[in-house]
Amino acid sequence: MNVLSINGARLWDSLMLLAEIGATPAGGVRRLALTEEDRRGRDWLIEQGRAAGLVSSIDSVGNIFLRREGQQDLPPIVIGSHIDSQPSGGKFDGTFGVLAGLEVCRTLSDAGFATAHPIEVVAWTNEEGSRFLPVMAGSGAFAGVHSADDLLTSIGNDGVCFAEALDAIGYRGGAKLGGRAFEAYPEAHIEQGPVLDSADMEIGCDTGALGQAWFNVELTGVECHAGPTPMAMRRDAMQGAAEIAIGVDHIGRTHPDARSTIGSISLWPNSRNVVPGRAIFSVDLRHPQEEGLTQMVAAFQTLIKTVCKERELTFTIESTARWAPLQFDADLIERVTQAAKNRSYHHQAIVSGAGHDAVHIAKLCPTTMIFIPCRDGLSHNEAEYAEPQHVEKGANVLLDCVLGLARKGTE
Amino acid sequence: MNVLSINGARLWDSLMLLAEIGATPAGGVRRLALTEEDRRGRDWLIEQGRAAGLVSSIDSVGNIFLRREGQQDLPPIVIGSHIDSQPSGGKFDGTFGVLAGLEVCRTLSDAGFATAHPIEVVAWTNEEGSRFLPVMAGSGAFAGVHSADDLLTSIGNDGVCFAEALDAIGYRGGAKLGGRAFEAYPEAHIEQGPVLDSADMEIGCDTGALGQAWFNVELTGVECHAGPTPMAMRRDAMQGAAEIAIGVDHIGRTHPDARSTIGSISLWPNSRNVVPGRAIFSVDLRHPQEEGLTQMVAAFQTLIKTVCKERELTFTIESTARWAPLQFDADLIERVTQAAKNRSYHHQAIVSGAGHDAVHIAKLCPTTMIFIPCRDGLSHNEAEYAEPQHVEKGANVLLDCVLGLARKGTE
Repeated sequence: MNVLSINGARLWDSLMLLAEIGATPAGGVRRLALTEEDRRGRDWLIEQGRAAGLVSSIDSVGNIFLRREGQQDLPPIVIGSHIDSQPSGGKFDGTFGVLAGLEVCRTLSDAGFATAHPIEVVAWTNEEGSRFLPVMAGSGAFAGVHSADDLLTSIGNDGVCFAEALDAIGYRGGAKLGGRAFEAYPEAHIEQGPVLDSADMEIGCDTGALGQAWFNVELTGVECHAGPTPMAMRRDAMQGAAEIAIGVDHIGRTHPDARSTIGSISLWPNSRNVVPGRAIFSVDLRHPQEEGLTQMVAAFQTLIKTVCKERELTFTIESTARWAPLQFDADLIERVTQAAKNRSYHHQAIVSGAGHDAVHIAKLCPTTMIFIPCRDGLSHNEAEYAEPQHVEKGANVLLDCVLGLARKGTE
Repeated sequence: MNVLSINGARLWDSLMLLAEIGATPAGGVRRLALTEEDRRGRDWLIEQGRAAGLVSSIDSVGNIFLRREGQQDLPPIVIGSHIDSQPSGGKFDGTFGVLAGLEVCRTLSDAGFATAHPIEVVAWTNEEGSRFLPVMAGSGAFAGVHSADDLLTSIGNDGVCFAEALDAIGYRGGAKLGGRAFEAYPEAHIEQGPVLDSADMEIGCDTGALGQAWFNVELTGVECHAGPTPMAMRRDAMQGAAEIAIGVDHIGRTHPDARSTIGSISLWPNSRNVVPGRAIFSVDLRHPQEEGLTQMVAAFQTLIKTVCKERELTFTIESTARWAPLQFDADLIERVTQAAKNRSYHHQAIVSGAGHDAVHIAKLCPTTMIFIPCRDGLSHNEAEYAEPQHVEKGANVLLDCVLGLARKGTE
């Protein structure tokens, strides 16, 4: 039925081998961007590519491309993700996408299968942002979302400059940053959430990424002694924050596929027998459509005003980030869905709640993502785990998708 | 109508003079227990007493007693409070009670007025607890609530031992700690809350002190990424804490004269795009009756269980303090009330929401408190302020109360 299938055991072995670089005692991975561990991971990846006949190039911010030539002078199909990790990350976040891309090329080469389009396996620099900001740095610089200088001058949380760290590992390459066409970018990734795992799905056909609106809110009431101050005479910032937190949660629940989170809070003076005079907290709102996100933001602003008026609190709202929702490419989504269907994999449509390199590359070319389940939705965690069968199936869907795209030129 | 009245201008001047010792640029006072400022305040007080014919004695934890002899060998009427301050305290907290006591003695001496009972003006050591724990230290040790050793071995937040600091300022006295009878202890104090000020009252006739029950609560849910995790699949510790906070506030509002406060909270990991997996917060419940306090605690425990069951959170509740409600002495309350009535001062019954030295001394003898308003209820604050007329009226009520008690022996 299918022309080709990937080698699941080989892909799994590669994942386990790469996971040895920066392995932690608890079974996770610590391979922060542009560290010695990252260098070893990069060297290993390039060597694996070379063995599979792929030619490497590295651009000025360290993005690695492993190219398999096509039969025609056409833009490449680009497949990959990132190999840097969180400080206590897992074996699959990012690396699954890169090594699934490598496995696709290996499979084609083993079969002597020529494609019209070139194929490039990419490992973007510093997706995690754990050491250097911005997050999704290499893909964002490639897509022109930030400049090379934004990256190169970034100071890591260890005080080291990005450019210095890049030079130290020998990965400031000569290839031009961006400015070239991609035919398509289907990125394979673990879901990093519980949706597929809890629904016993094998493949998530990613239709887009949630838009995000982030805020800092500060409420000011009157700090006073918790003993002598009657309840009716209080202007309690913590109570205002609590009512707003409940309201923000409700906003997320009334919009399908939306998210709303109060992830951080601090009180002043934060003393057990003082009625809090000030509360500062974050609000994170996400929605798959721009209109829905706008509605959520408006509902949130109304909520703050209503609560503060009633409780005689003053407030400030600071917008700290705003990313528009993203719809992935309809043709690519359909190809992923058809591939899963053809192989009888349990699949469903899903929206990415987190940021990925694909969000930036979507500005350049048709893009989508192929998700596989991770156990209990756990990611950015040393216990992160994906089942071998899901790893294999995800890579097969990527293969089918790439084959369909790469052959197009010859049809 | 009244036999005697105090000299309001002299009392006010004394308050302003003592406030110069440890004065802050913003108009407040920083006179932490057993510091050089405290020593200077103590020296000044003893000198003022000496000038008024009072004989000083100092006990083994530094409590100062300024004695005016009576005509008979009877237990003393003890009047006073404390002269240590919060780090950024005001001019009136504690010092009003001590200097009102001094003014009462000055007034009696000026008039050549003999009393059957001796009168002692007391300044208790370290009421505030800002440098050393426990709070209300000197009065508590005098009343046997804690031992002298509990105090003497206490290490201040500046690393200095209490005993060492006491010796350094020369205030480890030879008088016996406790073990002697008081006839009565009516303590004058600013209210430290907004009740009298907002009701345009001049005197609060204190009927008792709220019982207190303090807890630390820890809620545990599941920490997960705020983007990929659908609302329905969350076990969000912050949402649990918010619902409990609203419920705790409600418990306080449904019991007359009760208080309930969430003064501090911390989340884990406290990151804007992570659903909080853990929330730790304090709960402070207060009620004027033991039965009411018990009901509040039970309602609070039920609340936690209900919220956590519904939200699939686990919890721990740690009791960190429990003080029974206190009823002050009925005869003393009546004397204070009659004094205010006789002088046509606007007065009302009030319950102390905070801890005071009187709470400990109530274990030894008939005790009550005389409150005067402070502006906007502000205390433990450099902007703390009491009006001269309220200071004068509060001291007059104290005088009348003392006169009634001190003459008793001769009736």
